[in-house]
Amino acid sequence: MINVVIIGAGNVAAHLYQNITAADGLEVLQVYNRTAEHLSFVKDLKKRCTRLEDLEKADLYLIAVKDEAIEEIAGILPDFGGLVAHTSGSQPLKTLSKFKNFGVFYPLQTFSKNKEINFRNVPLCLEANSAENLEFLKKAASKLSDKVFEVNSEQRKALHLSAVFVNNFSNHMYALAAEYCKLNGLPFKILQPLIKETAAKIETLPPYSAQTGPALRNDQKTIHDHLEMLEVDQKKIYTILTQSIQKLHGKKL
Amino acid sequence: MINVVIIGAGNVAAHLYQNITAADGLEVLQVYNRTAEHLSFVKDLKKRCTRLEDLEKADLYLIAVKDEAIEEIAGILPDFGGLVAHTSGSQPLKTLSKFKNFGVFYPLQTFSKNKEINFRNVPLCLEANSAENLEFLKKAASKLSDKVFEVNSEQRKALHLSAVFVNNFSNHMYALAAEYCKLNGLPFKILQPLIKETAAKIETLPPYSAQTGPALRNDQKTIHDHLEMLEVDQKKIYTILTQSIQKLHGKKL
Repeated sequence: MINVVIIGAGNVAAHLYQNITAADGLEVLQVYNRTAEHLSFVKDLKKRCTRLEDLEKADLYLIAVKDEAIEEIAGILPDFGGLVAHTSGSQPLKTLSKFKNFGVFYPLQTFSKNKEINFRNVPLCLEANSAENLEFLKKAASKLSDKVFEVNSEQRKALHLSAVFVNNFSNHMYALAAEYCKLNGLPFKILQPLIKETAAKIETLPPYSAQTGPALRNDQKTIHDHLEMLEVDQKKIYTILTQSIQKLHGKKL
Repeated sequence: MINVVIIGAGNVAAHLYQNITAADGLEVLQVYNRTAEHLSFVKDLKKRCTRLEDLEKADLYLIAVKDEAIEEIAGILPDFGGLVAHTSGSQPLKTLSKFKNFGVFYPLQTFSKNKEINFRNVPLCLEANSAENLEFLKKAASKLSDKVFEVNSEQRKALHLSAVFVNNFSNHMYALAAEYCKLNGLPFKILQPLIKETAAKIETLPPYSAQTGPALRNDQKTIHDHLEMLEVDQKKIYTILTQSIQKLHGKKL
């Protein structure tokens, strides 16, 4: 049994708590956060911890706080000897180098408050300061997820940037379309099957091959009509993305 | 039983053929295309038709050809009296006004050659030249799909443009991420669960509320780090989308 202390009370911490609690071979010992009220997701009251002095010795400490707060927490967290790992996509391993055993445990997924996520399908990207610690992290991670990857700090930064494109920017495409639908008296839900299928498609086709649309066909009439329909900011986005699709596919501009 | 003639042999025609063949109350009478070899998806040889002279009287003619070819086909297709509808998101209803009974039957989905699509979940956007013809189209459409919408030509154009954002542009975000992963020795599949969850999220949350990431948090350090990692074209895309997210969420730029 691997005992885990979770540091933090945000979405990642809450999802870690739920999934570790449900996993065989892992156990949440405590969840630490300065503010008690944010710990309401910790159903077992005995496991809530608001004072560093009350922290116990555990096998694994998972720091799931905002990127900016990791250094501060690392600075004040006592070294109990257990492995201390942060869960950030953008922070380097060395942020935790004050500890004897340290690593990274980055779940590559988007977490929201009211939507359950099953970690079995969440890629866990691991890094550690020694081969032994990496083995230990892999052992813990594989009790949670079927998708365990060894990813170094440079690669993790690249992954985090890729995640901005596929998550933040794609979601913004949905948001712009939702605005546009509203403007035209259309229910956004009419686009939901298309959104779902677009995401599902790339499980069988590489996104390069899945590309369709007026940019790829270089359908100047439709592109022109679309640009006429858009306001200045959206027109810029439409133009730059159309050019980028054409460039990637080696079309003449 | 509603008899249907399909005109065309592309992805939309092939998916219509499969779904109409499988549907109760609908039957494919013929599939027309000038080039015989493109009709290989029509398993029943008797239903393949390569000469306009051989076309038969049917209740419904569905024109599923490229946008540019609709006018030409409409020009040479005899008027048998059955309802003639095109399946395009961008062409107006009036393209078919030479017929007595005409309409639009626009399936709002992305179709690929080797990926089956169940039409029950495909929004069918309908328009017709009379209330009676619209009722007939609704009757036919509801035998295929649970998502039947009445959408006028202007709204359909707006939907088509929205589809470019949620499908073409989102897919391009995936494609850029795939390129970037390759460059950094990372398998693209590591991003697939995130892509799927990003698309699934907006079934329970409006995309505006589902937004996360450095742009929304106005996390200048991460934004700066990301821009440093990108080449000039991708840097422009990152910048314009970051600004657009911040503008939509009313952040100061």
